[in-house]
Amino acid sequence: MLSVKKNSQTFSYRVYYEDTDAGGVVYYANYLKFYERARSDFLRELNISQSNLANDQKIIFVVRKCQIEYHFPARLDDMLAVEVKISEINKVSLTMMQKITKSSQLISELTVELVCLNSQTFKPTRLPKNLLDLIYV
Amino acid sequence: MLSVKKNSQTFSYRVYYEDTDAGGVVYYANYLKFYERARSDFLRELNISQSNLANDQKIIFVVRKCQIEYHFPARLDDMLAVEVKISEINKVSLTMMQKITKSSQLISELTVELVCLNSQTFKPTRLPKNLLDLIYV
Amino acid sequence: MLSVKKNSQTFSYRVYYEDTDAGGVVYYANYLKFYERARSDFLRELNISQSNLANDQKIIFVVRKCQIEYHFPARLDDMLAVEVKISEINKVSLTMMQKITKSSQLISELTVELVCLNSQTFKPTRLPKNLLDLIYV
Amino acid sequence: MLSVKKNSQTFSYRVYYEDTDAGGVVYYANYLKFYERARSDFLRELNISQSNLANDQKIIFVVRKCQIEYHFPARLDDMLAVEVKISEINKVSLTMMQKITKSSQLISELTVELVCLNSQTFKPTRLPKNLLDLIYV
Repeated sequence: MLSVKKNSQTFSYRVYYEDTDAGGVVYYANYLKFYERARSDFLRELNISQSNLANDQKIIFVVRKCQIEYHFPARLDDMLAVEVKISEINKVSLTMMQKITKSSQLISELTVELVCLNSQTFKPTRLPKNLLDLIYV
Repeated sequence: MLSVKKNSQTFSYRVYYEDTDAGGVVYYANYLKFYERARSDFLRELNISQSNLANDQKIIFVVRKCQIEYHFPARLDDMLAVEVKISEINKVSLTMMQKITKSSQLISELTVELVCLNSQTFKPTRLPKNLLDLIYV
Repeated sequence: MLSVKKNSQTFSYRVYYEDTDAGGVVYYANYLKFYERARSDFLRELNISQSNLANDQKIIFVVRKCQIEYHFPARLDDMLAVEVKISEINKVSLTMMQKITKSSQLISELTVELVCLNSQTFKPTRLPKNLLDLIYV
Repeated sequence: MLSVKKNSQTFSYRVYYEDTDAGGVVYYANYLKFYERARSDFLRELNISQSNLANDQKIIFVVRKCQIEYHFPARLDDMLAVEVKISEINKVSLTMMQKITKSSQLISELTVELVCLNSQTFKPTRLPKNLLDLIYV
């Protein structure tokens, strides 16, 4: 493992009815959707298109491990800020620290390990160059 | 179009938290999931495996049109009966009438048109034989 | 029924992995999520907050009927434009015409009937004033 | 914390199109839906109805923490076995160890901490008696 350039970004997403459940709050699995949107938008800002990766280079990111804490429930109409920060990056995998806040309120935290796979063989493959370039020389 | 052998089946699915929304009832889009499960299980009973179709024969079913009526809301823990009935069948497409009931209460009704496509070219292709065999000679 | 002021708005939403299925395109039920987000954002622009409505006035909108056509599949990373247009408005219900496009490509069309209900009794109740004000005098 | 009677159960759920994504496998957030169905069905077997709890006693279970590992992808049409085992139980909270297998293949593992809350005040409240009865005296 190499150390990584400080790299963090925050994206905003609205909570709609689809995200909530009969408990009146966001359904626990749906926070993972918000987290994944932020990771996708983070990659997009690095000019990494996951659909191009998948179609042209047969590369997909797969989640290996998640650790989620739920601190405070999000609700219908909330505007959530979802942060993405790379905490560790390797040749074929990376770890991100993410959190969701609403105004100054901490909603949830996630540590997620992703691995880069060939979508046909499901064998590990090198991360896209724009991501590897985030590694300090 | 040819007339079709009377063919109807009913499958049961439970409502879980994932299906509900903050209104306390099943989210309107999620009824389409129950309907699709029943269509898949209906095909499975005809020995049609959609994953085999997709992987081996590059055939997928695509929905062209839906008409849904919502009569009464389903709620957490409800056990729903979902009926599938083929109302029309052609070489490359078919129409199904479906309904969801809870005990004797009518929850929802759906008319859905499906077309059989080649998953690579997205061109219409013949329905699987086991489905075509439902057509009266 | 009264005629309605011309009223149409368009909102944009990105397609993420969560929206797609193993067919490689957006799952048929998930288009209804995009449609509902646009209706919610349309109400928000009229200063109608559905969470305030639900919590303070015990009013919810419930879908009674949908007619959806699927013209062309949306895919991962697509940016979709979702239009909302009120075609009919009454004291307790309204009909909207919606469509989804991607660049100039028509993806899907929806006609949806909504009714305004008391969230406790599930009895029809008058639409929020800001919506009724859209009716021509 | 008290030690707990050995208590484990397994439930089966089918993978449908709704569960998959464009990567061709079950979307990472959707495994949490299968895990939650199994917890709900586990409670149901203890004669604990979550809808009765929520409506009559204003009690809901809320997830505080999840640790998930993804070992092998599940795919369309797979029949998954989801195990629920209580590993720790307290007055207002409990921890469950869960895993998903397909035939003998390990798909995923989850450790989940749940807390029992009053659905109005969101304050911790005692677990339902049938769950507390699982605690060794």
